[in-house]
Amino acid sequence: MARILTFLGKGGVGRTTIAIAAAKRFAAQGKRVLLAFQEPEAAVGILLGEVPGVEAQALAPNFFVVQFQASALLERSWEEVKKLEAQYLRTPFFKEVFGQELGVLPGMDNALVLNALREYDASGQYDVIVYDGAGDQATLRLFGMPEILSWYTRRFRKVFADSDLGKTVTPFLQPLASAVLNVSWTDDLFNQPAAKQATNILEQGRQALADPNRVAAYLVTTEEPATIATATYLWGAAQQVGLTVGGVILNRAHDSAAVAQTFAPLAVTPIPTQAVDDWQPLIDALPDLEQASQAPRPIAINVAERKVSLFLPGFDKKQVKLTQSGPEITIEAGDQRRNILLPPELSGRPVTGAKFQDSFLIISF
Amino acid sequence: MARILTFLGKGGVGRTTIAIAAAKRFAAQGKRVLLAFQEPEAAVGILLGEVPGVEAQALAPNFFVVQFQASALLERSWEEVKKLEAQYLRTPFFKEVFGQELGVLPGMDNALVLNALREYDASGQYDVIVYDGAGDQATLRLFGMPEILSWYTRRFRKVFADSDLGKTVTPFLQPLASAVLNVSWTDDLFNQPAAKQATNILEQGRQALADPNRVAAYLVTTEEPATIATATYLWGAAQQVGLTVGGVILNRAHDSAAVAQTFAPLAVTPIPTQAVDDWQPLIDALPDLEQASQAPRPIAINVAERKVSLFLPGFDKKQVKLTQSGPEITIEAGDQRRNILLPPELSGRPVTGAKFQDSFLIISF
Repeated sequence: MARILTFLGKGGVGRTTIAIAAAKRFAAQGKRVLLAFQEPEAAVGILLGEVPGVEAQALAPNFFVVQFQASALLERSWEEVKKLEAQYLRTPFFKEVFGQELGVLPGMDNALVLNALREYDASGQYDVIVYDGAGDQATLRLFGMPEILSWYTRRFRKVFADSDLGKTVTPFLQPLASAVLNVSWTDDLFNQPAAKQATNILEQGRQALADPNRVAAYLVTTEEPATIATATYLWGAAQQVGLTVGGVILNRAHDSAAVAQTFAPLAVTPIPTQAVDDWQPLIDALPDLEQASQAPRPIAINVAERKVSLFLPGFDKKQVKLTQSGPEITIEAGDQRRNILLPPELSGRPVTGAKFQDSFLIISF
Repeated sequence: MARILTFLGKGGVGRTTIAIAAAKRFAAQGKRVLLAFQEPEAAVGILLGEVPGVEAQALAPNFFVVQFQASALLERSWEEVKKLEAQYLRTPFFKEVFGQELGVLPGMDNALVLNALREYDASGQYDVIVYDGAGDQATLRLFGMPEILSWYTRRFRKVFADSDLGKTVTPFLQPLASAVLNVSWTDDLFNQPAAKQATNILEQGRQALADPNRVAAYLVTTEEPATIATATYLWGAAQQVGLTVGGVILNRAHDSAAVAQTFAPLAVTPIPTQAVDDWQPLIDALPDLEQASQAPRPIAINVAERKVSLFLPGFDKKQVKLTQSGPEITIEAGDQRRNILLPPELSGRPVTGAKFQDSFLIISF
């Protein structure tokens, strides 16, 4: 298992440069590093001295780079889909469609990249994966996917089972399944091996994201107000997808005192403007990127005190909406909804109070 | 019908500032303008003097602004889904799930924003919609969606109809449909009224995108090599989704001659560095943004000469992959695949030659 790190911030603040420096430092420390780029940028080739390919390649000892490309990843995933259908379907159907034909729809990029990160992580070949993504809301949607997809599955499964529609459709499914599938069919669609495997992958993703020693983000900003505003927004929005933000890198810094206050309690590390042809001063100036576990966690549940604490920096009470329906509570902020599955001790209890205190929303049951 | 304009370029080049100036100019010319922002950015509030809301609001005569928010758009679209199911399904099912619960998955943002743009366009209330999106590959995926989704529908519909799976499943569909739907069922799933409506919407989207007087993009760059490299890449990638790029805005320009060469035959308009508190010099320096129809089109089909010309600036021959399977040809470049549906005169004919000439890929049949 690898440590996965990413950088969030407004375009132009130097995220890619910081990501390269971070990867170089981990490699120099003897860690096996994969530096993964989301979008082909000519600038990457200039900075690295080589244009990364779509397969991971070694640029230096312990230092691997890869350029994610949605069209190539889609082609590879399509082969997996065909293998699955060959395993489960009596008469394969997708085999008539070739991976080389498939266009990329919105969202596919991020789903494919998340899957690629998962596979590189599981390969055991890397100690650290530095992911240079879009660094904005799109990156947050990517990391939020396992939790939100789990919710959709759970919610719609229950609604389907309880509905008249489900009761009407279910009798048709058994004969349809025996005509189509070449595996034995139990009465529950979601208990099929393929569905279980998908659920396991989502669960592993959720667990990785919940552990700041596995997945963490760092904010990158300059002293310009617009970049600070974006970093502040992304800090709060990251909590809403359960991504721990470990610290702030203040690039091209002159005076870091004012910025330090904005991001308290996170550490703000100033990085002076550097010449790009000498990486060492930049590498030396970077903070320790393995300390994210000391930063506030997006969520903490205290069963004994019947309290759920959500860290929501950068928001005020008016920007946060809390609703409760059935066993779940929903928090809306930063253009994301988070459905919180309560532990059995709190599940079904009504919310008795909610207060905002030092950037934490504390909900009592 | 409105003219929809968007700006592409690396983060930090000043896209949002240019978008605001462009909208202000159209409004001053007496056109009804909607300026639509994708992500909530505190900087927008600073620049506009007001934070835009999730509903379009007038800031000045003819000048409307809106802040897209995926969670709010999703809630609204969910109501539409429920209306559709109430119309078609005998026993509604989605009504048990509330829009306020739904989290945002990757891709939903862009699908929802495209739909919102479509609705604002159809409302007849605006002459121009200036869309300030992510300005990167994500924006291109958004505009490419109607064409690519049409392809998926067309391709899988045919594969399904021709497949053993389709033949096995079809007999089960009729009784299932009569149990579940409250509309009459013909033998083809894709001839249902709801499916036809969806197909029409996709077709309208494709037609709008194919007309540079309806939808066009402008590149924004500075003289910094990394921003020029990104703009060049996005220029080529835009062609791959069928989006016409009308020109280049060179922000904070000192010497535009070198840059002009990179983007020929597009016009490069230099914009000097401006004080943000006075918009007029910036507004005056902008190019005419209604001339995109004079720029090279992404695709031109000449039936008489049996030639298809694709404009692919910024790519060399090695970066472009051409494949032919059945009646369609597929072009891979700029991390997007484009499936070209040939007119009947060329459909089914083998490709006899392909050459790269002045940034055009010319395919002969």
